[in-house]
Amino acid sequence: MSELRRDPITGRAVIIAPERLASTRMWRPVRPPAPDGNGLCPFCEGHEQLAGRELLAWRAAGQTDNGPGWRVRVVPNRIPALRVESHYAEPTTALFETLGGLGAHEVIIESPDHGADWATMSVADIRMVLWAWRERMRDLRRDLRLKTFLVVKNVGAGAGATIDHAHSQLLALPFVPLHLDDELTAARDREQAGHGCPFCTVIDEELASAVRVIASDKDTIAISAFAARVPFETWILPRRHLAAFDDECDECLVAIAERIRDTIRRLHAALQAPPYSVLLHTAPVGEAAASYHWHIEIIPRLAPASGLAWGGGIHINPVTPEDATRALRDALA
Amino acid sequence: MSELRRDPITGRAVIIAPERLASTRMWRPVRPPAPDGNGLCPFCEGHEQLAGRELLAWRAAGQTDNGPGWRVRVVPNRIPALRVESHYAEPTTALFETLGGLGAHEVIIESPDHGADWATMSVADIRMVLWAWRERMRDLRRDLRLKTFLVVKNVGAGAGATIDHAHSQLLALPFVPLHLDDELTAARDREQAGHGCPFCTVIDEELASAVRVIASDKDTIAISAFAARVPFETWILPRRHLAAFDDECDECLVAIAERIRDTIRRLHAALQAPPYSVLLHTAPVGEAAASYHWHIEIIPRLAPASGLAWGGGIHINPVTPEDATRALRDALA
Repeated sequence: MSELRRDPITGRAVIIAPERLASTRMWRPVRPPAPDGNGLCPFCEGHEQLAGRELLAWRAAGQTDNGPGWRVRVVPNRIPALRVESHYAEPTTALFETLGGLGAHEVIIESPDHGADWATMSVADIRMVLWAWRERMRDLRRDLRLKTFLVVKNVGAGAGATIDHAHSQLLALPFVPLHLDDELTAARDREQAGHGCPFCTVIDEELASAVRVIASDKDTIAISAFAARVPFETWILPRRHLAAFDDECDECLVAIAERIRDTIRRLHAALQAPPYSVLLHTAPVGEAAASYHWHIEIIPRLAPASGLAWGGGIHINPVTPEDATRALRDALA
Repeated sequence: MSELRRDPITGRAVIIAPERLASTRMWRPVRPPAPDGNGLCPFCEGHEQLAGRELLAWRAAGQTDNGPGWRVRVVPNRIPALRVESHYAEPTTALFETLGGLGAHEVIIESPDHGADWATMSVADIRMVLWAWRERMRDLRRDLRLKTFLVVKNVGAGAGATIDHAHSQLLALPFVPLHLDDELTAARDREQAGHGCPFCTVIDEELASAVRVIASDKDTIAISAFAARVPFETWILPRRHLAAFDDECDECLVAIAERIRDTIRRLHAALQAPPYSVLLHTAPVGEAAASYHWHIEIIPRLAPASGLAWGGGIHINPVTPEDATRALRDALA
């Protein structure tokens, strides 16, 4: 029988309806990217000029900027949705408002290798990606007009990716968007009611019950979301309370990279290389740290969003989070 | 240059980025449904037993229930996500809550003809669909446990449709979902600040400026949403203030059907039969009527949602609403 569940943080309702699984239409799995035979991929090593001048790169000593020899490389989006050269007008009570185009829109090229993906990259490789996210945030947060950082990684056309070569995108916004504000407000309400950080409580309760823990160690945990919106929605959290990802330490990034690699390998094995999106949720700049807890949400994109989910915010999920957990636990056995 | 815009009702921010249009990957158009040659479509006339016992139908006098001869027919979803036989537990402050599976999930079969769609159906045919939506809501609202009605229509696999035969779905929920609650709260705040119904104000201001009006008459208006989340997001509103769709009069349904048919024909012509979703937004049962205004949102589903839109609520729309308006105005010329 199907049931309504509420997300423990936001209160967002989802319908868990396992009886509907057989009639659900799924995407086909992502094919691995074709080898870069035609020489046109702007993100491949040797094509640095096509991707643009780098904002950040990790390369061995003695290598030249904007040439080969890097392991991760950050460039401005070729057609940025937002620009730091633009302005921002604070909203008023007017009905129709245009707020300017201030922000930043950068691309993290995650590997020089065209065929790399998070399931096959090493922990050190993925750690380098997290390092690039963090370093760019630390640079951008010096611009006091920028309030919010969003990092998103789309893998496969079903997830909206238009380039196969492994990459993620960093967006910096001069405001706090509604989705994040809902999460921050709900977390603050719980904290002010004397319950502490709700994410810390979720971690404690999930470890105690163990039915949705995919894997964990002393530093990190991967769980199936209690109110998963789609099959196999998975959250990765640091066990230590920290509001902002850009405050993470170097060793912590290694632990997170290990958990990410393990989780993606499980999803690949269980779902045969599904399209997926990854979102980094982190506190806005200057946000009080008591009630928020940065984390990563992995959203397998197995089917197009129905209109009900897209426009109504009502997700009908045909796989229970507990079944997803069992499948992911056993996936690498 | 791209710009941030806020939705006049909810304040939801979108990025309008026309420079990004050339690099946007779009779905292929929906193909018209294959003729029902294999005899398996459960929604075709003559296959009534496959779709299930009807809750409502419009048929000529003298016809028998659950047989042929209908023009519109409503049945329970074969595998309902929610059921009226289930229970509902009001949420508490607990972190992990399961609220039961109470609700209703019905399917409106919009035509006996397998190849029908809203671009080719007559105004009378579409009016019959709206009549079925309204009548089912009037019946269901007698169950005082049900608070919210959502109607959604998905056309094409890119919009999540799994059956080609024209149909819509009605979901009745025992609570007000977050998305609708955000809209209701924002509208109530505007009304209480002395600005009246914000939807009425939007209609007045759009008619005055005329840059986003696709078509209008004395009863209805079709506009490009000021902060459109995707290319060609279009809203249809009744010009007369009314909170709940199920309170609409018979003649009003004719006017709405005319506006829907005209709008869908424009979208078909301009975008070559795109996949799309239609959502009916209507006030919850018993909601005060002063600040809300029922309306229809048409969401062309030209591309998969990026992870940023899906999980972060940040939409980057590469077509300005003003350009979309011009294209739709000229589409039938």
